[in-house]
Amino acid sequence: MKKNFKIIIEYDGTLYNGWQKQKSAKTIQEKIEKVLKIITGKNITIDGAGRTDAGVHSYGQTASFFSDTKLECKALQKGLNALLPNDIAILQCSIEHDKFHARYSAKSKIYHYRVLNKPIRCAINRNYCLHIKNRLDFTKMKEALNFIIGTYDFSAFEGAGSPKQNSIRTILNMDIYQEAGGYIIFQLEADGFLRYMVRNIVGTLIEVGLGKRTPENFKKILKSKNRSLAGKTASAKGLFLMKVFY
Amino acid sequence: MKKNFKIIIEYDGTLYNGWQKQKSAKTIQEKIEKVLKIITGKNITIDGAGRTDAGVHSYGQTASFFSDTKLECKALQKGLNALLPNDIAILQCSIEHDKFHARYSAKSKIYHYRVLNKPIRCAINRNYCLHIKNRLDFTKMKEALNFIIGTYDFSAFEGAGSPKQNSIRTILNMDIYQEAGGYIIFQLEADGFLRYMVRNIVGTLIEVGLGKRTPENFKKILKSKNRSLAGKTASAKGLFLMKVFY
Repeated sequence: MKKNFKIIIEYDGTLYNGWQKQKSAKTIQEKIEKVLKIITGKNITIDGAGRTDAGVHSYGQTASFFSDTKLECKALQKGLNALLPNDIAILQCSIEHDKFHARYSAKSKIYHYRVLNKPIRCAINRNYCLHIKNRLDFTKMKEALNFIIGTYDFSAFEGAGSPKQNSIRTILNMDIYQEAGGYIIFQLEADGFLRYMVRNIVGTLIEVGLGKRTPENFKKILKSKNRSLAGKTASAKGLFLMKVFY
Repeated sequence: MKKNFKIIIEYDGTLYNGWQKQKSAKTIQEKIEKVLKIITGKNITIDGAGRTDAGVHSYGQTASFFSDTKLECKALQKGLNALLPNDIAILQCSIEHDKFHARYSAKSKIYHYRVLNKPIRCAINRNYCLHIKNRLDFTKMKEALNFIIGTYDFSAFEGAGSPKQNSIRTILNMDIYQEAGGYIIFQLEADGFLRYMVRNIVGTLIEVGLGKRTPENFKKILKSKNRSLAGKTASAKGLFLMKVFY
């Protein structure tokens, strides 16, 4: 009898070409499937809640897969953590009902984007933030971000060259807050995200924070559905998939 | 006219063989001196406040050096940050009086040791903490650490094989506190530290936290001046030189 496993995965995306398995590049999915094969002796395909891009990190990526392994969750998790490279960790493992699917069952996801806003770059957390040396106007960015709460066609913030599809998503919550050491955290919760959506929103918000755009301009970009009007895509290293809600 | 420069340096020690210049290993001092040579055209020797070991990090290492460069502090700092690898950053640069010396003028230093105390290891900050999966008794560790406030011969916590020297140091302040995500921070301020002293103290404290030793046993070890009685040296990756006071 196959059981439906759910795992929650923390990873440092710095050295990976993203989540999704590819022909000739190192990815998180591939690493986990390789270890599952060692542990269970079988080929297992895992489904992730979201396809994080190259360099993006996770504290809460969730994946599901079926296996007839006799191992209990605790033992399976222990085996995975022992055999996975040290930039991937399985934080939780549980058994779900057969209908559960990490991607299709997801109700919403939270992403964080971390900006280090101080004159001098950092050394220690350099892979976990985007450094912006000029002072960002916190109030202006918050004002702009307020415009995207709700259901919109987010084509303007979709990655160029993405396959044509439904670009309507609902932003359920947003927040911007400061953390010790000069960090600004952008938090977005949505029922789903388009490719590069968070990074394009943050890239454009940073231009608002730098005074290169107004909050009203940000609103216009959203309504335009025109990718070429938005700002540049913020670097992958500041982005974290924090949590998937079911 | 030579000026006496003081710089404060942040670094991620993961890929370095410590602070101090060596014949055939990559060190922080060597990297900075190499870039100073490029900028000023002259060989400059810099003096660091403390010789951090391989893998140890810094938010506050301080160094001083003399140079007849015509550059202002701001420009020198900018040049250094542009040319240094991204795991080293110059946080401050100033000109001091001629008698100032980063090591000899130092009054005290603060070190932090970060332990991640939760059942599952992490991925994202793996180079910036020591993972201890079993629950540490916070109260017992604090009780033990209280015994070392004051002036003592710290031979019991000195690195084995260290050159014979005066092993008396004064611990001015200590603290242990918890941070979000399961982190425990050990903070120690002293007029000076012996080689491996913080890591040996923390390694022994962890054994107290795990119930393998009592706080009284910790006190006995200190008084014994006998290195072989103390616990093992905690991993370098959890250690941070935070600040040097002058």
